[in-house]
Amino acid sequence: MGRKLYHGVSWYPELWGREIWEQDIAMMKKTGINVVRMGEFAWSVFEPEEDKIDFSLYIEAVNLLHAHDIDTVMCTPTATPPVWISHGHPERMHQEPDGRVMGHGSRQHACTNHPYFRERSAKIVEAQAQALGRLPGVIAWQIDNEFKSHVAECFCGTCRGLWHTWLEQRYGTIGRLNVAWGTAVWSQTYQTFEQIPQPSTAVPFFHSSSLTTMHQLFSMELIAEFSEMQADLIRKHSPQPITHNSSVAFHLDNERLFGKLDFAAYDTYASFPNRNAYLINCDLWRNVKKDRGFWVMETSPGHGGSLRGQPQLHPDGYLKAEAVAAYALGAEAFCYWLWRQQRSGCEQPHGAILSAWGKPSIGYRNVLEVEDARRILEPVLLDTRPLQAEVGVTYSDRAKVFLRTEPHRNLQHRSLITHYYEQLLDLGLHRDLVPEGADLDGYRLYATPFLPYLSRELTDKAVAAVEKGAVWIVGPLTGGRTQEHTIPTDAALGRYLEELAGVETLYTYPMDGSGTTGTALGITAPLSLWSAVFRPVSAKAIGLIDQGPSQGEAFLTERPVGRGKIVMLGSLPAGEEGESMLRRILLHYAGQAGVTLRTDVSPGTIVAPREGVGYRLWVAVNMDGQGGSVTVPQDCRDALTGEAIAAGRLFLPPFGYRVIRMELAAES
Amino acid sequence: MGRKLYHGVSWYPELWGREIWEQDIAMMKKTGINVVRMGEFAWSVFEPEEDKIDFSLYIEAVNLLHAHDIDTVMCTPTATPPVWISHGHPERMHQEPDGRVMGHGSRQHACTNHPYFRERSAKIVEAQAQALGRLPGVIAWQIDNEFKSHVAECFCGTCRGLWHTWLEQRYGTIGRLNVAWGTAVWSQTYQTFEQIPQPSTAVPFFHSSSLTTMHQLFSMELIAEFSEMQADLIRKHSPQPITHNSSVAFHLDNERLFGKLDFAAYDTYASFPNRNAYLINCDLWRNVKKDRGFWVMETSPGHGGSLRGQPQLHPDGYLKAEAVAAYALGAEAFCYWLWRQQRSGCEQPHGAILSAWGKPSIGYRNVLEVEDARRILEPVLLDTRPLQAEVGVTYSDRAKVFLRTEPHRNLQHRSLITHYYEQLLDLGLHRDLVPEGADLDGYRLYATPFLPYLSRELTDKAVAAVEKGAVWIVGPLTGGRTQEHTIPTDAALGRYLEELAGVETLYTYPMDGSGTTGTALGITAPLSLWSAVFRPVSAKAIGLIDQGPSQGEAFLTERPVGRGKIVMLGSLPAGEEGESMLRRILLHYAGQAGVTLRTDVSPGTIVAPREGVGYRLWVAVNMDGQGGSVTVPQDCRDALTGEAIAAGRLFLPPFGYRVIRMELAAES
Amino acid sequence: MGRKLYHGVSWYPELWGREIWEQDIAMMKKTGINVVRMGEFAWSVFEPEEDKIDFSLYIEAVNLLHAHDIDTVMCTPTATPPVWISHGHPERMHQEPDGRVMGHGSRQHACTNHPYFRERSAKIVEAQAQALGRLPGVIAWQIDNEFKSHVAECFCGTCRGLWHTWLEQRYGTIGRLNVAWGTAVWSQTYQTFEQIPQPSTAVPFFHSSSLTTMHQLFSMELIAEFSEMQADLIRKHSPQPITHNSSVAFHLDNERLFGKLDFAAYDTYASFPNRNAYLINCDLWRNVKKDRGFWVMETSPGHGGSLRGQPQLHPDGYLKAEAVAAYALGAEAFCYWLWRQQRSGCEQPHGAILSAWGKPSIGYRNVLEVEDARRILEPVLLDTRPLQAEVGVTYSDRAKVFLRTEPHRNLQHRSLITHYYEQLLDLGLHRDLVPEGADLDGYRLYATPFLPYLSRELTDKAVAAVEKGAVWIVGPLTGGRTQEHTIPTDAALGRYLEELAGVETLYTYPMDGSGTTGTALGITAPLSLWSAVFRPVSAKAIGLIDQGPSQGEAFLTERPVGRGKIVMLGSLPAGEEGESMLRRILLHYAGQAGVTLRTDVSPGTIVAPREGVGYRLWVAVNMDGQGGSVTVPQDCRDALTGEAIAAGRLFLPPFGYRVIRMELAAES
Repeated sequence: MGRKLYHGVSWYPELWGREIWEQDIAMMKKTGINVVRMGEFAWSVFEPEEDKIDFSLYIEAVNLLHAHDIDTVMCTPTATPPVWISHGHPERMHQEPDGRVMGHGSRQHACTNHPYFRERSAKIVEAQAQALGRLPGVIAWQIDNEFKSHVAECFCGTCRGLWHTWLEQRYGTIGRLNVAWGTAVWSQTYQTFEQIPQPSTAVPFFHSSSLTTMHQLFSMELIAEFSEMQADLIRKHSPQPITHNSSVAFHLDNERLFGKLDFAAYDTYASFPNRNAYLINCDLWRNVKKDRGFWVMETSPGHGGSLRGQPQLHPDGYLKAEAVAAYALGAEAFCYWLWRQQRSGCEQPHGAILSAWGKPSIGYRNVLEVEDARRILEPVLLDTRPLQAEVGVTYSDRAKVFLRTEPHRNLQHRSLITHYYEQLLDLGLHRDLVPEGADLDGYRLYATPFLPYLSRELTDKAVAAVEKGAVWIVGPLTGGRTQEHTIPTDAALGRYLEELAGVETLYTYPMDGSGTTGTALGITAPLSLWSAVFRPVSAKAIGLIDQGPSQGEAFLTERPVGRGKIVMLGSLPAGEEGESMLRRILLHYAGQAGVTLRTDVSPGTIVAPREGVGYRLWVAVNMDGQGGSVTVPQDCRDALTGEAIAAGRLFLPPFGYRVIRMELAAES
Repeated sequence: MGRKLYHGVSWYPELWGREIWEQDIAMMKKTGINVVRMGEFAWSVFEPEEDKIDFSLYIEAVNLLHAHDIDTVMCTPTATPPVWISHGHPERMHQEPDGRVMGHGSRQHACTNHPYFRERSAKIVEAQAQALGRLPGVIAWQIDNEFKSHVAECFCGTCRGLWHTWLEQRYGTIGRLNVAWGTAVWSQTYQTFEQIPQPSTAVPFFHSSSLTTMHQLFSMELIAEFSEMQADLIRKHSPQPITHNSSVAFHLDNERLFGKLDFAAYDTYASFPNRNAYLINCDLWRNVKKDRGFWVMETSPGHGGSLRGQPQLHPDGYLKAEAVAAYALGAEAFCYWLWRQQRSGCEQPHGAILSAWGKPSIGYRNVLEVEDARRILEPVLLDTRPLQAEVGVTYSDRAKVFLRTEPHRNLQHRSLITHYYEQLLDLGLHRDLVPEGADLDGYRLYATPFLPYLSRELTDKAVAAVEKGAVWIVGPLTGGRTQEHTIPTDAALGRYLEELAGVETLYTYPMDGSGTTGTALGITAPLSLWSAVFRPVSAKAIGLIDQGPSQGEAFLTERPVGRGKIVMLGSLPAGEEGESMLRRILLHYAGQAGVTLRTDVSPGTIVAPREGVGYRLWVAVNMDGQGGSVTVPQDCRDALTGEAIAAGRLFLPPFGYRVIRMELAAES
Repeated sequence: MGRKLYHGVSWYPELWGREIWEQDIAMMKKTGINVVRMGEFAWSVFEPEEDKIDFSLYIEAVNLLHAHDIDTVMCTPTATPPVWISHGHPERMHQEPDGRVMGHGSRQHACTNHPYFRERSAKIVEAQAQALGRLPGVIAWQIDNEFKSHVAECFCGTCRGLWHTWLEQRYGTIGRLNVAWGTAVWSQTYQTFEQIPQPSTAVPFFHSSSLTTMHQLFSMELIAEFSEMQADLIRKHSPQPITHNSSVAFHLDNERLFGKLDFAAYDTYASFPNRNAYLINCDLWRNVKKDRGFWVMETSPGHGGSLRGQPQLHPDGYLKAEAVAAYALGAEAFCYWLWRQQRSGCEQPHGAILSAWGKPSIGYRNVLEVEDARRILEPVLLDTRPLQAEVGVTYSDRAKVFLRTEPHRNLQHRSLITHYYEQLLDLGLHRDLVPEGADLDGYRLYATPFLPYLSRELTDKAVAAVEKGAVWIVGPLTGGRTQEHTIPTDAALGRYLEELAGVETLYTYPMDGSGTTGTALGITAPLSLWSAVFRPVSAKAIGLIDQGPSQGEAFLTERPVGRGKIVMLGSLPAGEEGESMLRRILLHYAGQAGVTLRTDVSPGTIVAPREGVGYRLWVAVNMDGQGGSVTVPQDCRDALTGEAIAAGRLFLPPFGYRVIRMELAAES
């Protein structure tokens, strides 16, 4: 990939004739599209019958695009196996936990672990890499499409066998598994690995937590292996970097999945009212593959939709704000699904840039606004790179798994973490969502909420940062489960953590409905969720419970460790006062930790800080359509126009953006 | 059938002994019942063991009724095959899209396409026609009972095979099907017809629109063929006319089903609050078999009910209003389900005229009121016939299919069309719901809303009417899909329609939530549903969008064609203002088209116009129990009492009715 | 069992090592625990491989407990068969009505009727009784665990065969079944018992009422037989009494189940807001085995919970109120689930006395309060016994079955009967919930609401009580169905009852939404539910319908019979006025019947009357945490402190209790 900001679309040359190709490419050029993603659903075109493989149509398309200076991200087509793979072979199909065996007629219907499917996938992917991998137009690869977006774990016979093998590899002997999972509860004790069920819906009550969690991790590991098999085959024939169009909403461990891929990419269709879910993606995926810009591989040019969908059109101007925010926060590409509306299938109603009858669609004007912005921003952004945040928040898809196994009152990891994120956003604190395995260098305030299993590795890494001066906020909902999704028996949150934090957890219980309130840093709020009640040992109580059955005990403590602090937050303060308290806590410890990357930007507007040689940029973008403002601390310049900007309040119009350049010398 | 108004009941002689028969018939005579429907669940009585067939019990019952001057509608019993057909033969049973194979213990459990079931059905029906078809008491036939009321499409092995055959007959080659359905999307491309799945629930996302729609049409066609097989056998042995007790709620294409039947009949259990759903039936079914009066074959005498039902009792007096409205709007019969409450099964709680212990039930008094009205109305109504409306609205069960495949925000054809119908009702415009295939002669205002696929035939027929002076209002939701349920690629609504209407559709999108409002004919309202935005070419913009992303474009246009106009309505105006706008539009174009059949009847009251030789009748009925009124334009007479009625406002008491006779000479 | 009040816990020695045993027992002693229940999930420990049976671990545990003066209730482990029974044998598993075959991984997954399961159950139970049945520590047995709490009827092949056999035994010939069930409706007529389906979900509409009800009764009978098989085996080797931890919420006929067991026990996890559901249990289970104290075998020490549960913590102090109320109302034991939180499985979040890490949990303080109360109350309560109430209300799990088959508007027997019970509670009338088969001696006011099938036996028994002076209130919803769940054909509620009650039921219908109100004893209220409208024959109308379609008819009648009265209540008065009317009716007839056991206790507080030799106790307990009061009619003493209590108003603090001793001589 070259030094560009990409503006891209998904394109389906296999669905339209050559005449439409020509029209499409001419129109793309007018629109400013410089990259096309294609091939992810084209298996039946590449291989209409078993072993009758032909990529000539795609070679032609890639070369035609290239001739018009449009790059290609080439996808492997394994999300939609042809009918000759699926027909008459239920044993090759994905099976749901309720026993339903998927059939042809949609996508993701095959079991990605079935040997025949794996064999055919390997064959078509390698053939594709051979045929297309060195075409000059191809600048990157995408493996498959939205792994596990429609389906989660597979319950077919193949997977059952692999599950047993995986367990045997993990535990060695059945006895060790029985101990680890505590299977003596309810006489579930297994004699052999073959006896271990998958967590289907065919049980009178619930499966055990260990089994349910492990089965999800197993599934996530195997889909990552499938991805790696493809990546290895591509690399044999193509030098281009490889990604996958993922999402935190899918049933994936993205940290595991992207481990051996080259750059991060994701799809997002967050609606305008849900725009913080759009932003959190930027602050997360920037850190999934830290050395590379990420790609917004799919987003709608105006609205989503399917036969049964309930799409909502973006307000005028919001698309541009999305694109500018993404580019500023580290995106290398901003791509739409899709260029030309599908005339058939089940996604006809989905928004596109051109309609099925070839005319600019409702969002077209907004796409042109994106392109205007992209052109203006490109030189400025390519000369700079996003600043690492000083505030890091642990993001873990394994935490998502634990909460899916044990949701209590319908808790969802995604909404919990987004709510937490929003407090940082509203405080104007620049922030990174940080995968569990990532390096913590540079984080002054590091928070680990909603992580039921807190590994020894992560603890040690965080404590090392604390030793050097960072503040680490642990909880709520963090540490109360072991790696096997059981309860620790040495201490509520594990003795290792409690000793480090200088607390004893007295007990844990669901605070909702118990009338519990707490006060910390001058704010009183109801406490919620399954909570840990602390008695400080070597720590100091910062937040005390002032009503409810644990009155007088602590829910917030701190203990100095090295040059920093470990802060334990046992409960989630709730309601508006709870949000105030959480913000107060975050701000308080950000201050103590020496966090400086903060602006007073008004809510609904963001500031993305970037750094160049000897200067910083602030890219301010109004996301809520209400306009916004931020105080510019010093006289500086508009990086786009060169005009002077005086220190003081700078206002942005609805969905407007400004790029402010501050010379570092002047910063002191 | 003779020249009578029928007042009827469902009766089950097989469930009760001869002593009860005598009591029942004596009581029917007292009540004024003159027709009985029976036999629809009696297969196990007719043929308790395979080939042991005996109709003597029914011959006796028919003759006994006839001896008391009570006619019989004889039903074929194919809705409830005996246990010797179903037991041990899952392959003969109906299968649901989730794979569940129906068993014995209810009704509609057999696959109506299974060869053995068809064979046994043919045998019992022909035997029944032979045994009973020429009895003097039998005046009509009903085939089966409420086809496809509990089940929709069958997913059994037999049906799978027939589906493939049907597709092959429709498309000829698999290649043509692949093109027609656009199966290249998601690599769904089929190599043979045998590979084509049925749209079961066993797919990760959705089946394609074409497959989903075609499978419904296939199912509807085959049930019509089953009905026709029965009709042919009956006609071999009986001269009496044939019908089916249908409903727009069932999974049927009623236009197709009634094509070869002799008269229209339907069941309705609309509750009082839902009374417009009762009225729309009268205005629809009158036009399904236009030359014959229709039958209300089943309705409750007071309340419905089943083991799990939530029946609501009609208010006192409403039953009479229902019956008078039906007779006045073209019904030849008004029949109850059922005469005597069932003592067993799963419908014991269902309202009946007599209780299981033989006493008049709660609704009995209201049934007597119906009989009083019927007796009074009979001579007056038999001398007249319903006037054809000047306003026609397209009704299509195929439209229902398209919207079931593609419901967007849970759209239902029935509630959309009922809402549209209510505007005409409130305007006092007399109206016909018109099947797609019907003749359009006589309609001055013809509206075609909610018809995703608008056929060339219907277009040409409507344009022919326009040429002669009619106004045709097209939309909303009309024309955006092809016959194969794909998107047109020449123009949003197809170039054929757009050129006739003189518009170019710029784009289509979901307007809900987009803040769009439009103004037409002086009224401003929010616009809703998936909408088409027009740029007039040779048409004139009548309604403009004044807020939202399409500001300044048109949603309502008109173009003079011949002596009439084609009006395009791209969007459904919403809310109370939307209803006002829609009424304004309908009234405006009714005026332009020269519609005269309108009264100023107050909302909640209806006027059914009829014509005799040299005079007209207005049958006014208060339906909402609030009383109502209408202006009588000239001095005239009460057709029932002969009393003079002066021109001016005529008032009706709650649930009251009047029959007003106006001499035509005086009309001028 | 000795003369003690028990305070107990569930304990799982198989889950923890010997060191933890020692800690647990030491802590139990400190806490005041004097009985442990164990073994109910330990099959895989007793018999890890087929026929490798070893109870030594449990012998050790029982003896260790005994050495510390802690008694044991020993459970049979049949709720959780080991994997060697379930693995690879789907035919042994419980099958759901939707066809799903349960697998290993939870509990209640085996079919309790499968021959192999029965054989293995018999073997392990007998071995257990032999090994443990005469240990001095074992004071009682519990069979299995919460029969049919997660599953209802089984639809496996074994059960299908047993169903046919059961039907043949019940009906003798298929002809008799066809008549009894009225199978001629919908041609369901059966030729052989083998053809009769189970009421699976695989029917297009509903199964017949008779089949649905009988299948539930069949299932309930067979689980009782399974229980009796175990009881017989235990009795061969152990002299101790036998029970089961049941609930009215389970799919059981408890009257049938406990018929051959020795004492009553149940589990309850009613939340604080639902506390009347806690109390109704006490007033019911006291009467299930009338000669013996009942056991609260499981309740939470503070909150329930499971992986997906939404537990709510009891307010501080409520646990003590629960325990005191139970002891006072006849409980011999108050036991918690569970002692030590489970570290694995799917109930980790469930509240326990000690946490998984061995510390007192949130509810611990409340458990100590219970123990304080227990110690104080023990001598006082052991010298007295609960007074039989003078007011009895029929409780029937068969009624529950009938309403499950025919729920109309989602009616549930449990909420209906609880609502009825609450009126008695609020009136301060002491009351018994009385199983259908119980003796009615001593009841002055006897009410039979919500019993669709009223047997001849119960009628005769009630009439005999009436002859001697009692008042019997019949209805609402009582008597309208036959034993076979069909409708009577001689009279709406059967001629036998109607003649005794001196009424003719005109008709029955759903009154909800019909605008019906009635007036009785000076109160006017809306009438609701499926109601019977009466015309008095020899009875006198007490309540008349004053609005709605049955205006002027009766809904409440009375007829003197012998020295008492039969009162018919045809409808449930609804809303707040309805509650007032129902209370007025109950109070009115309690007065007429000479009921004296009533106090003016304030709502939210209860009085449990007990009798000693020559005196009575009132145990007053405040249940709602608001405090309460009751008028003490005479000078008396506090039974716990000996202090004098003056006649007049006695106040209780929130969750407080008092034991008032009144000498009988003084009562007169």
